[in-house]
Amino acid sequence: MSILVVGSVAFDSIETPHGRVDRVLGGAATFFALSASYFTDVRVIGVVGEDFSAENEAVLTRRGVDTRGLEHVAGKSFHWTGSYLKSLNEAQTLKTELNVFETFAPKIPAAYEDSDFLFLANIDPVLQADVRRQMPKVKMVCGDTMNYWIHDHRENLNKVLPCLDALLINDGEAKMLADDGNLLRAAGKILATGPKTLVIKHGEYGATAFFSERSFAEKPGLATVPFRAPALPLDSVVDPTGAGDSFAGGFFGYLASQPEVTPAVFKRAMFYGGVMGSFAVEKFGTERLQQLSREEIDQRFSRFRELSHLD
Amino acid sequence: MSILVVGSVAFDSIETPHGRVDRVLGGAATFFALSASYFTDVRVIGVVGEDFSAENEAVLTRRGVDTRGLEHVAGKSFHWTGSYLKSLNEAQTLKTELNVFETFAPKIPAAYEDSDFLFLANIDPVLQADVRRQMPKVKMVCGDTMNYWIHDHRENLNKVLPCLDALLINDGEAKMLADDGNLLRAAGKILATGPKTLVIKHGEYGATAFFSERSFAEKPGLATVPFRAPALPLDSVVDPTGAGDSFAGGFFGYLASQPEVTPAVFKRAMFYGGVMGSFAVEKFGTERLQQLSREEIDQRFSRFRELSHLD
Repeated sequence: MSILVVGSVAFDSIETPHGRVDRVLGGAATFFALSASYFTDVRVIGVVGEDFSAENEAVLTRRGVDTRGLEHVAGKSFHWTGSYLKSLNEAQTLKTELNVFETFAPKIPAAYEDSDFLFLANIDPVLQADVRRQMPKVKMVCGDTMNYWIHDHRENLNKVLPCLDALLINDGEAKMLADDGNLLRAAGKILATGPKTLVIKHGEYGATAFFSERSFAEKPGLATVPFRAPALPLDSVVDPTGAGDSFAGGFFGYLASQPEVTPAVFKRAMFYGGVMGSFAVEKFGTERLQQLSREEIDQRFSRFRELSHLD
Repeated sequence: MSILVVGSVAFDSIETPHGRVDRVLGGAATFFALSASYFTDVRVIGVVGEDFSAENEAVLTRRGVDTRGLEHVAGKSFHWTGSYLKSLNEAQTLKTELNVFETFAPKIPAAYEDSDFLFLANIDPVLQADVRRQMPKVKMVCGDTMNYWIHDHRENLNKVLPCLDALLINDGEAKMLADDGNLLRAAGKILATGPKTLVIKHGEYGATAFFSERSFAEKPGLATVPFRAPALPLDSVVDPTGAGDSFAGGFFGYLASQPEVTPAVFKRAMFYGGVMGSFAVEKFGTERLQQLSREEIDQRFSRFRELSHLD
């Protein structure tokens, strides 16, 4: 089934202990789309400027991603400059140039209206809610957010949360959103505010899914114990940028590729999320996500199983 | 098979967001022994002062722990005062009164000489090496250490590491010991310095075992992929004191209860470690570890499996 993703398509300038790159292709929607493209059809809604080349777009289209919803406007593309020299676990933003992204108003092409799954990447919750409203028929909606929206735009964010089948955020965001330093209690509070399921990402320690009575529509209360997927211990993290969006792409891409979202499918999707995140960080930018094979992905999936299963 | 543990038996005064307790029974050997006692016979070597009551000792003997190696001397027992008000993830030491522990010289009773397994809890590596020398016939030796010994007594510690079948330390200790901020690389470096297997504890994120060619004596190179055991998301951590020693007790206790240490047994032991750690933090001090049943333990083991397994 097809996934529609709305979010940023950008250029990133990044420094890490492994080196630096200037204006490489990035953005949440880009990482998500490339990652999900190994599992299902993906359509992108975003905005780029005149500096976005045909070759940039071909990175997406070569992976079969539908870019008809990628609006080209006058001006420069969103440009993020960040550093991981202090810590590989947390990006230090050096500069955010929103450029054409500042006035981004997502428009959904008619050809996208039959999309089955919707991913609301980390953008203004007002836009997330707007896109959600325009896609009333999707089967499943997942979304991301970040500290800025949680802290400064809570009221708008609160309107989006009840629309989500699953919210994907990290430890710090979850604790901030719930105003609770205990992760399990925080999860309970967040689930009470709307999303049916909550996926909390722990970086190098993997991710945990917390379920509610509403997680599996046809089978209320089916999964009650949280589910924790591991992350792969890596001897070299070249560039952590996009790891979370790549996780989301693997997770949601796998869900969309399956006939039904059961607890077993959801758990496998958590593993595929970790698998795609682990690939993303092996090279700068989207480089690694451009060149994978499904065989490599499934081999690493087996490794995740071996890493965490008793038998 | 029987385990001999050498380490601290102490009184702890602790404050956490859940309250405070004064001079409750604690110490690494105490937590380890109580935890391991649910799996196998345990013998303790330690030293206590005149303030250590018959009732204190009965906490151990009621669980079948052999305390003949617990030396009673004039003076006061080791007393640790700590706070978790700033963070539940890291104890803030307010006061360390070594008292009788300052001149601790472990003596091994003749009745302990046939012990099959040896656990060297976190004490001076000179004493760890001394005990190891006195127990040449044990089948397996595991050990713990801490930042203080890593930083200030490295040379002595370096003599202990090659004697260990498994070293159990936490993330920060591993990175400090290897002088490498990447956990997988750090693990490789530590394994190269001696221990056959390395278990790194991640607190609320579980623990990872890193294997070497020498991990399973009869079967070199048997396990190569690391193994990650989850921790149970808890809605209330009352007192983190002793969680690591309780992990070690569950881990080593289970190993000692099995006819052979195979990779499959080792992985199950990692789960039992997590299980016992999760119980320990539910109440202050050793309270929770005094009242468990094997049925509760195995129920929680099943929960760990459900939490982390795809099928």
